[in-house]
Amino acid sequence: MAMQAQVIYDFSAEPGNNELTVREGETVTVLNQNVGGGWIEAQNSRGQSGLVPEDYLQVGAVSSRTPETATYPDAYSPESSNSTNTQVANGDNPWSGGGADTNDTAGGWDTQGYAQTRQNAGDDDDDGEWDEEWDDARSTGGYGETTGEEGEATGRNTHTHMKMSLNKFAFSKIPNPEVYLLAKLPPKGKDRLAIYMGDVGPVWLYPQSPLDCVVADPKKGSKMYGLKSYIEYQVTPNTTNRPVNHRYKHFDWLYERLLEKFGSAIPIPSLPDKQVTGRFEEEFIKMRMERLQGWMCRMCRHPVVSNSDVFQLFLTYRDEKEWKTGKRRAEKDECVGPMVFSTIDPEAPELDIIEVEQKCELFSRFTKEMDDGVKDLLNVGNIHWKRCTGPLRKEYQKIGKAFQNLSSVFNTSGYTGEATLTDALTAAGKTYEEISQIVAEQPRKDLHFLMETNNEYKGLLGCLPDTIGVHKAAIEKVREGDKMVAAGKITTQDKVTMAKRTSIMCYSLQAEMNHFHSNRIYDYNRVMQLYLEEQIRFYETMKCLS
Amino acid sequence: MAMQAQVIYDFSAEPGNNELTVREGETVTVLNQNVGGGWIEAQNSRGQSGLVPEDYLQVGAVSSRTPETATYPDAYSPESSNSTNTQVANGDNPWSGGGADTNDTAGGWDTQGYAQTRQNAGDDDDDGEWDEEWDDARSTGGYGETTGEEGEATGRNTHTHMKMSLNKFAFSKIPNPEVYLLAKLPPKGKDRLAIYMGDVGPVWLYPQSPLDCVVADPKKGSKMYGLKSYIEYQVTPNTTNRPVNHRYKHFDWLYERLLEKFGSAIPIPSLPDKQVTGRFEEEFIKMRMERLQGWMCRMCRHPVVSNSDVFQLFLTYRDEKEWKTGKRRAEKDECVGPMVFSTIDPEAPELDIIEVEQKCELFSRFTKEMDDGVKDLLNVGNIHWKRCTGPLRKEYQKIGKAFQNLSSVFNTSGYTGEATLTDALTAAGKTYEEISQIVAEQPRKDLHFLMETNNEYKGLLGCLPDTIGVHKAAIEKVREGDKMVAAGKITTQDKVTMAKRTSIMCYSLQAEMNHFHSNRIYDYNRVMQLYLEEQIRFYETMKCLS
Repeated sequence: MAMQAQVIYDFSAEPGNNELTVREGETVTVLNQNVGGGWIEAQNSRGQSGLVPEDYLQVGAVSSRTPETATYPDAYSPESSNSTNTQVANGDNPWSGGGADTNDTAGGWDTQGYAQTRQNAGDDDDDGEWDEEWDDARSTGGYGETTGEEGEATGRNTHTHMKMSLNKFAFSKIPNPEVYLLAKLPPKGKDRLAIYMGDVGPVWLYPQSPLDCVVADPKKGSKMYGLKSYIEYQVTPNTTNRPVNHRYKHFDWLYERLLEKFGSAIPIPSLPDKQVTGRFEEEFIKMRMERLQGWMCRMCRHPVVSNSDVFQLFLTYRDEKEWKTGKRRAEKDECVGPMVFSTIDPEAPELDIIEVEQKCELFSRFTKEMDDGVKDLLNVGNIHWKRCTGPLRKEYQKIGKAFQNLSSVFNTSGYTGEATLTDALTAAGKTYEEISQIVAEQPRKDLHFLMETNNEYKGLLGCLPDTIGVHKAAIEKVREGDKMVAAGKITTQDKVTMAKRTSIMCYSLQAEMNHFHSNRIYDYNRVMQLYLEEQIRFYETMKCLS
Repeated sequence: MAMQAQVIYDFSAEPGNNELTVREGETVTVLNQNVGGGWIEAQNSRGQSGLVPEDYLQVGAVSSRTPETATYPDAYSPESSNSTNTQVANGDNPWSGGGADTNDTAGGWDTQGYAQTRQNAGDDDDDGEWDEEWDDARSTGGYGETTGEEGEATGRNTHTHMKMSLNKFAFSKIPNPEVYLLAKLPPKGKDRLAIYMGDVGPVWLYPQSPLDCVVADPKKGSKMYGLKSYIEYQVTPNTTNRPVNHRYKHFDWLYERLLEKFGSAIPIPSLPDKQVTGRFEEEFIKMRMERLQGWMCRMCRHPVVSNSDVFQLFLTYRDEKEWKTGKRRAEKDECVGPMVFSTIDPEAPELDIIEVEQKCELFSRFTKEMDDGVKDLLNVGNIHWKRCTGPLRKEYQKIGKAFQNLSSVFNTSGYTGEATLTDALTAAGKTYEEISQIVAEQPRKDLHFLMETNNEYKGLLGCLPDTIGVHKAAIEKVREGDKMVAAGKITTQDKVTMAKRTSIMCYSLQAEMNHFHSNRIYDYNRVMQLYLEEQIRFYETMKCLS
């Protein structure tokens, strides 16, 4: 008798990929445990068979235990589909209660970084595949469970990262700044992040020639003898002008590295939404590519991110070996989380804690208000989009048909001298059908870019409570300084160091906010200009039609 | 103890007119039976008092009889509010079953003309007042129940006409053409209606200079020492250029006369809707005036109607005496209903019954199809109107507010170089608020005239089944001719006469349809031109705003 397996997490199959949808608690029959690539071929009680990620099954352990999903947030609900860690972690309102409250460390000094919780990631188009990096190269190695040159150590490593990757939809806490505030810092290395005083206040050091890249030419590939397929995008940076290929999962890996390394200082927006179905539909691929392009552009425009080793690796690796070496190094980077502040050198005098707090409050209030404003605009834009492509389109069509219908009736009158009128009615009817078409297509021309930009900003703003939260937590620590000294928990010197380092963090926040503002002004100027141009074009077309 | 009265019909008070709303079966206390003008002052069980038309009360007869309204059609339902007799009489579809079926005379030769049924006319702004013609003059005569120079005979006469007036919302049958087909005709008088052969077939004789009139200058008057008030319109024909004053009830009287006299041959559209409340609101008065103007114009344009004695009287009477004499004469006119065909003289050979039937069918089909088309256009136009003034207006407002809101948020950034962007956002926001306004006002500019015209045609088309029905009934009679001769009910000569007179009716129908077509082409050409001009103006405005 074939081996049974218990499904321990929900998994939704992607159509056309030979996968099998399974639900927690379900029992399946294992057909082939040696498929490789982290997959098991299984059959459900209804006789349907397909691939299921091996981590989702407990082979041989068939029981009636209660599913553990009850406390997991729904990663696919409309609310969280565009959200970042914090938004899920803090419920509906990432801004509630202020940043300091969300950091649950007031009573103690725990060293916990990111909370890690396993979650249902069944729709991740790459889950369970982290152990096979170069699909085609790997699949030649046979169906062994762990094959390839990276060996066991790397296998463990990637397994950890897979969990990190899953983490991004799950609970998280704001990184505890303590690791930086009181840490014995390593000697200053060469990779310093400079902040200098510009016209608008503290600013990052911007490169002479800005980095940029083009994401293009999506190609479908397959692996496991065609059992699984995927899309590979060509990414070409303006520095080398040499294209490199990346799958969505590589972008996702990059996102995880950037979030881990810079998330405390710089908002790293989520990658474009994953999608359960339609992965190979042209439109979806085009949309994902457009959004990956937008995401990459935003990362390129950030002087700290774009200059980082991991980002440069992603854009300019020359061969598989260089990629793998760089990958391993990036994954071993210890200067992550709040420790990133240790690499920042502001050329400015130490700030008073009151001033730090005020600036933090100012940014916090601004981002919250902008977040509300952006969501409001997205909301009305979305309603308008739906109205234009739905009821309004149909209404103009109906008006058009009513005119044409009247024209047909008039044509049957048998009365002479009717032609001019029936021609006019038919023309009016056809015009309305054209208007119906134009009205329905208009959102794609004008609203689309406005919505995309605001959507990007919604994502970016969603990260800011986390970033600001780290700062608020640091301020809290400094404020508690005297008490801690009195309790003998820290020394007076520690207190001075904390204040100094919080000041450095504040310069970082100011530099980041100034970066945010200058980009915001650039982006919104551009989007408003294009929007208004399209509006004029629209009414011009309509006028000419009439 | 005061006298009690039983309410025998529902009556809805008009606000501000010191009237009392009463319901059938209700018992009221009579406070003053000598108010005059056909009114009784009464008090209901809740202590409210006011005027009730005396015909609506049965003074002294308090019983618990069942109200008789159950079988009355609802004159105020949306379906019937614009409808004519037939539409109410035949239910939802005035076209169902063909004209011949609706004439319930197949089995016998009854001489019944219009069926008369009393109905609930509580919202008629003039009901119960037919016995006092010149309000101001009358009220000086004291509070007597029937005063004035017209005497008892006229009193009875006007009472009959009041019933006729009420009749227009109630059941009716298609006039029986028998009265004409077999009648011994009076000697030909001087008022002959000429039909001659034009380029398009049989046409009425059109006057050299078309009649026209202006309805303007609505003035509020009052009577019964201010207890009741009304609106008087000034009507000025282009022939005399001398204004005459008419209240709505006079228009209504004219409508009744025209319907009675010409309804079998010419569609006489209903007067604009009556309205229960808001009689003195400016907008309502303006709207009613506009529609009375439209109705008068259409009547003026009809060569037969405009040339009739009753219509000329309405437009050109010189004093009260002339009006009253003319009124009495018109009400005594016996050449009404199908007898109007006896005054028609076509200059053309007699038509074969098959040809008559074919033409009748053709017109019937055309009017039915046009009626469907017009209703469809009214329907989508109405939906579009509501969308423009409702959700679309609000949506643009919200988009405008979202832009302006974002601008306000950006203004608080504390970042320099923001002005151009926030100005652009504010401007875009204000533009959207303007667009919201323009979009909401647009229907009044373009759709209004399109809707009014189609509404007029809906009314006109609603009369045609009646008109066509008379013809179909006549054809039916001719087809039964041989049988009737065999049964000895008519002579062979009668049969020949019937065929000849049906041929005359057919010429009349053709002349009327040609009149209808030429007017239709003129009206729709005009409305389409104005509509398209407004459309261009709209998009031009929008373009300039953007």
